[in-house]
Amino acid sequence: NIYDIAVIGGDGIGPEVVEAEIAVLEATGLAWNFSSYEAGDDCLASRGQALPQATLDGALAAQAVIFGAAGVSAADVILRLRAELGTFVNLRPSVAYKGVNCLHPQTDMMIVRENTECLYAGIEAQLTPEVVTATRVITSQASTRIVNYALEWARQAGGKKVTAVHKANVLRKTDGHFLQCCRAAARQFPDVPYEEALVDSVAMRMAMRPEEFQVIVTTNLFGDILSDLAAGLIGGLGMCPSANLGQAHALFEPVHGTAPDIAGQGKANPSAAILCGAMLLRHLGQEQWAARVEKAVADCVADGQATSDLGGKLRTMEMARAVIDRL
Amino acid sequence: NIYDIAVIGGDGIGPEVVEAEIAVLEATGLAWNFSSYEAGDDCLASRGQALPQATLDGALAAQAVIFGAAGVSAADVILRLRAELGTFVNLRPSVAYKGVNCLHPQTDMMIVRENTECLYAGIEAQLTPEVVTATRVITSQASTRIVNYALEWARQAGGKKVTAVHKANVLRKTDGHFLQCCRAAARQFPDVPYEEALVDSVAMRMAMRPEEFQVIVTTNLFGDILSDLAAGLIGGLGMCPSANLGQAHALFEPVHGTAPDIAGQGKANPSAAILCGAMLLRHLGQEQWAARVEKAVADCVADGQATSDLGGKLRTMEMARAVIDRL
Ligand SMILES: CC(C)[C@H](C(=O)O)[C@@H](O)C(=O)O
Ligand SMILES: CC(C)[C@H](C(=O)O)[C@@H](O)C(=O)O
Repeated sequence: NIYDIAVIGGDGIGPEVVEAEIAVLEATGLAWNFSSYEAGDDCLASRGQALPQATLDGALAAQAVIFGAAGVSAADVILRLRAELGTFVNLRPSVAYKGVNCLHPQTDMMIVRENTECLYAGIEAQLTPEVVTATRVITSQASTRIVNYALEWARQAGGKKVTAVHKANVLRKTDGHFLQCCRAAARQFPDVPYEEALVDSVAMRMAMRPEEFQVIVTTNLFGDILSDLAAGLIGGLGMCPSANLGQAHALFEPVHGTAPDIAGQGKANPSAAILCGAMLLRHLGQEQWAARVEKAVADCVADGQATSDLGGKLRTMEMARAVIDRL
Repeated sequence: NIYDIAVIGGDGIGPEVVEAEIAVLEATGLAWNFSSYEAGDDCLASRGQALPQATLDGALAAQAVIFGAAGVSAADVILRLRAELGTFVNLRPSVAYKGVNCLHPQTDMMIVRENTECLYAGIEAQLTPEVVTATRVITSQASTRIVNYALEWARQAGGKKVTAVHKANVLRKTDGHFLQCCRAAARQFPDVPYEEALVDSVAMRMAMRPEEFQVIVTTNLFGDILSDLAAGLIGGLGMCPSANLGQAHALFEPVHGTAPDIAGQGKANPSAAILCGAMLLRHLGQEQWAARVEKAVADCVADGQATSDLGGKLRTMEMARAVIDRL
C-alpha cells in the first residue's frame, strides 16, 4: 500500500516547511509516493497561471495533497483548490504548546469551519458605480454536513462540547437557517453537549477564557476570523496546521503564509507543516503515527529544540530531524 | 442653554447604569433636561412593541439619546434606532484601565465601525427551502463617510495611525470598493498614517499585539466582531462605551448587555455607561468635562473604588458617587 501524495510547496517558506514535513512522513517508514506540483506567485510569473491545470490534475489524482503557502495569489490558489477538491470541511486546531510564549496556555480547541459557501461563494456585483454587493449563501446541505462533521468529531474525541457560532440576531434568515440545521443535527447526537453563541460574544470570550470552547462549528467567514484569533491566543500561526477534507479529497495546509522576510534562509518554523503531516497520517488511518508525530513536535518545542521564532536555535531541517529523532 | 436628552434605560441592568450616568452628568452643573422613554423586552411585553413610536419620536426630538441595554429584542431596538437616527458612525474605544485585570494593559484603540450597511442592510431571502441568502451592501457614500470620520478623528487625536480592515482578497468587489474609497480619502489626509490589513490577520494581531493598532476603520460586521474582541483584551465589556453618531443625531450606549443575572440588585458596573456620559459631553462640546469624567472613572478603578466585577466593594450608585467626588 503506497500513499500517493501531491506536494504543492508554493511560495516563500512554503517549499522549506513542506520539505521538513516530507522528511518526517518518510521517517515513519510507511510507503510514500510524493509528486511535486507548482502553484502560487512564482508559478504565475513563470507560467502565467497561479494554479496550472497540471497541478489541479495532480491534486485530483492523488490520495491527498500537502500544501505549503502561496503569496499574493493565495486566494486564487487555495480557494480554487478547495472548490475543485470539494473539501467542505476546514479543520483548524489551536493548541497551546508548552514552550511557546502564549497568552492562554490552557487553549485547546478545534474550529470546524464550513469551507464552501457563505461570503466565499464568490457572488459579487457592482450594481452601480457607487453600490457593490456580495451574496452570503447558506444552504441546508452545507450546514448540515459541516455540523454533522463537528458533532461526529466531538463524539470521537470523547464527547467534547460543540458551540455553533452565528449572528442570527442580525442575519435572521441565513444564520437562522444555519442554526436550524445545527439543532436538527444536534438532536441526533444526544451524547454530545451542544450550545450556540453569537460571533461577537465568542470573539470576546475567546480572548478572555478560551478554555470555554472545545469544538466550534461555524460558517466560512466567521471560521476564517475566529481561527486566526485562536492562533493569536496560542502565540501565533507557528503551531497551526489545518485540514481541508471532502468526500474524495483532502488537502493539508499550515495556516501561516509565505513569510517573505525569512524565505529561503532555512529558518522557517516547520511545526505547522509537520503537524499537517500528523493530520494527514490520521486521515490515512495511521492514528498511532499521527499521535507520535504530534508528541514529538510538542516535546521538541517544550525542550527548546526549535526554530528561533520559538526561542530555539535550530534551523528548519534541524528541527525536522529533532522531531524524527523522537519518533 | 439646556441640553435635551432622551433616556432609554431598557432592560436588565440598563436602567441602573443609566441612573448612574445621569447622576454624573447632573454633577457637572450643566443644565440638563432628561426625558425617559421605554424600549426593550419589558416594553414589548407590556405595550406590544420593543420600540414604540413615542420612544422613536422622543429620540428624534432630543439633542442626544442615552441608552442602557435591551434584552432579546436588542436588535429590534438598537438597529432600528441607529437607522432612524441616521447614525452612520459607531465609535468604540477600547482602553485598558489600571486596576482592571486584563490581558493587554497597553491596549488603547478606537474602532470606527460603519453603522448603516454591510450585512446589516437587512436584505435576506429564502430562495428555496434549502437555500438562503443575505446581501452585503457596500456603497461609496457610506464607505467614504466612515473613513473620513476615522481619518479626521485620528488627525484630531494628534496624527494616530488609521488601519482600514477588510477581506478584499476574497470579497474582491465589495471590500475592493471599500478600500478604493479608503485610499481616496486617505490621500486627503497626508498627515495621518494610513495602512490596510486583512480582518483575519487583524484578529490574530489584536490578540497578540493590540498596541499595533490605534484607529481601526472597518465595515459594520467586522467592526462588530473586532470591537468585542478588543473588549476581551481589556478585561471585558465593563469599560466599553460607544457612540452612534450621525449628521443630526447621536446615541450613546454601553457595549455590554442586560446582565440578567445581576439585574435589579444594584451591583452593576456603571463605568461603561458613565464613560458614555463622557462621550456625550465631548459630543456637546464639553471637552473639559468629558476629560474630567474619564479621569475620575480611571482613578476610581485604579484605586479599587469600584463594583465587585472590578474587584471593588461598591454598589452601582456608590461608584457613581465616587466618580462624582473626584470631578
Ligand atoms: C488566503 C485566504 C483566501 C484564506 C481564506 O480566507 O480562507 C486564508 O485566510 C485562510 O484562512 O486559509
Ligand atoms: C444587538 C446587536 C444587534 C448589536 C450589533 O450587532 O450591532 C450588538 O452586538 C452591538 O455590537 O451593538
